[in-house]
Amino acid sequence: MKVNILGSGITKFGELWDKGLLDLAYDAGSEALKDSGLKAGQIDAVIVGNMLYGKASGQDHLGALVAQKLGINTSSAHVEAACASGGVAVHQAVTGVLSGLYENVLVIGVEKMTDLSTSEIGTALMGAASEAERQSGLTFPALYALMSKSHMKKYGTTREQLASVAVKNHYHASLNPKAQYSFEISVDKVLNSSMIADPLTLFDSSPITDGAAAVVLSSSKPSDVYISASAVASDSVGLSERKNLNEISATIRASKKAFEQAGITQKEVDLLEVHDCFTIAEILAMEDLGFCKKGDGGKFIESGITKLGGNLPVNTSGGLKGCGHPVGATGVKQIIEVYEQLKGTAVNRQIKNPKIGLTQNVGGTGATVAVHILQND
Amino acid sequence: MKVNILGSGITKFGELWDKGLLDLAYDAGSEALKDSGLKAGQIDAVIVGNMLYGKASGQDHLGALVAQKLGINTSSAHVEAACASGGVAVHQAVTGVLSGLYENVLVIGVEKMTDLSTSEIGTALMGAASEAERQSGLTFPALYALMSKSHMKKYGTTREQLASVAVKNHYHASLNPKAQYSFEISVDKVLNSSMIADPLTLFDSSPITDGAAAVVLSSSKPSDVYISASAVASDSVGLSERKNLNEISATIRASKKAFEQAGITQKEVDLLEVHDCFTIAEILAMEDLGFCKKGDGGKFIESGITKLGGNLPVNTSGGLKGCGHPVGATGVKQIIEVYEQLKGTAVNRQIKNPKIGLTQNVGGTGATVAVHILQND
Repeated sequence: MKVNILGSGITKFGELWDKGLLDLAYDAGSEALKDSGLKAGQIDAVIVGNMLYGKASGQDHLGALVAQKLGINTSSAHVEAACASGGVAVHQAVTGVLSGLYENVLVIGVEKMTDLSTSEIGTALMGAASEAERQSGLTFPALYALMSKSHMKKYGTTREQLASVAVKNHYHASLNPKAQYSFEISVDKVLNSSMIADPLTLFDSSPITDGAAAVVLSSSKPSDVYISASAVASDSVGLSERKNLNEISATIRASKKAFEQAGITQKEVDLLEVHDCFTIAEILAMEDLGFCKKGDGGKFIESGITKLGGNLPVNTSGGLKGCGHPVGATGVKQIIEVYEQLKGTAVNRQIKNPKIGLTQNVGGTGATVAVHILQND
Repeated sequence: MKVNILGSGITKFGELWDKGLLDLAYDAGSEALKDSGLKAGQIDAVIVGNMLYGKASGQDHLGALVAQKLGINTSSAHVEAACASGGVAVHQAVTGVLSGLYENVLVIGVEKMTDLSTSEIGTALMGAASEAERQSGLTFPALYALMSKSHMKKYGTTREQLASVAVKNHYHASLNPKAQYSFEISVDKVLNSSMIADPLTLFDSSPITDGAAAVVLSSSKPSDVYISASAVASDSVGLSERKNLNEISATIRASKKAFEQAGITQKEVDLLEVHDCFTIAEILAMEDLGFCKKGDGGKFIESGITKLGGNLPVNTSGGLKGCGHPVGATGVKQIIEVYEQLKGTAVNRQIKNPKIGLTQNVGGTGATVAVHILQND
């Protein structure tokens, strides 16, 4: 598979009070178009990844609406897969390009979350979970806390190891001007911040964020960086319906397909962007993607190997934790971070000569996982 | 293009008080699987078309949820494009099959509308329109009434011609055991029913409906009927932002692409399923798809040519008007009706030896249009 990335655009991630959802989508989309060198009239399809806007505002039909805002009247669609909406939108765009029906596809992931109150956004996000989970009063911090407790009990993963994910990702975010949080934190800071759902504290958790991210995919024009694999896998939506709290099996299945598509192994991957909605999620990702043994994720990350300067930098954007997590935008932002790194334009967080990067975007507690591999060789 | 249709499944359309949305999706999906001869484990992707469930129930993540219900853990996605959600879901599935990433894709369109009160459903459906339209208190009957008035003024289209669409489609519905309405109506009945938005009465309008429809698309197994064209086009979401109230330009653009893909002309088409959400919409569809001259749609339909037994039967399922309009399911149901006709299994509404059929599915007042062409030759 070779789907070229022609350009990207991304807004600041954060509390963007002066922008509406369509403004954000327009800003990222028009920047990506400009970066690609294409005109709006050359785009064959617009695919919008978004989870919450229908519920938050009453407005649906986002594919056509965003396309209109950008002056595009070709094919459009809105794709939703909870927190994997962005990654699945990229996947749908990849199938569009590979199908031969489209030459150039603009994918925009966007979310406007800060307009909702804390209880409203908490309730809205539970749309990603099962009905039983919603009705029993669970929240996503609570669900990921259950996974954390289980992993700690079975594998001896420590609170400090969980915290080390947040510390690393805040450091990376401090080097990313688009990130919501530009400040570094310590393990102590994480451990002593407000308890959200034992053992997860405030600083184990990704924030509520506004933002948009866009890429132009193409079969026609050449580019320095291309997508060499795109795979999605599903699982039961409710955590209680799974056999195992210590793995996200959709990550295992999606990444297996992706490695086969790209014809590479884990050893050839130079960097990753993974879905660290809570610190435990990055530990599970490293294990389920096959970069360390099951149960060793905490030690692996604590060792520093995945920090900038280490052998396998993970979440150089700052991840969901430091860069922010505008739900529908996250999966597209991950693609952009790897794209920038492979182009060599990641400035003060640039890795030296990376060739291959991988992204992993999770919906809910793992009912949907989208994995992409990007290459520049 | 040749994307095989291996099987289909469809629920009764109507007020289905004893079924939830997931039940409907399961019923249609498992019937389509059985009809296709494939097992759940042979499905590479599930694509769910749905507009309203997130707002109606709080539940998102429908792709994974429906896949889980059917015992499928491969790729999944939820696609939304207002009332064109089903058609756009089929389109995304077609790109998936053509991409080579999937061999077999299950597409399910589903909507559960009757759980909402009249005001709730009216408000929810306005998510397909523009913010300005919502804020000014417009409804879809009102928007299509504006289009009706304009067409009547410019082309002399009569109330009786509008009514003839409903009369024909109720007759067709009376022959379709899955249809919401099994009774025939007269022109007088349409004209004398409650006024909804002048000139449109109750019987000019499609109903609120529960239902689901599913098809299995494939690149691997042979089949009698295949999709030879799949195209989507977009337009401004707000009606006031268009240059012309008398046409749906996205229909013109999507159908032009579809005819090119299939390499056929209007003359070769034996039957159509078009988006008659209101009677005026079928008149516009006949014109914009190029089956009669602009302005002649009313006369064309009134002549009887599009009634079963005529030269070009349109909406033999009963259309949205008679069969019902479970929003996300409609675009998939259209595919199924043409599939049944081309297979020769439409029983007492069967057309004699049709070879080519076309479907047109509209979102909002035409901001999204999906056109498919099916063939059996």
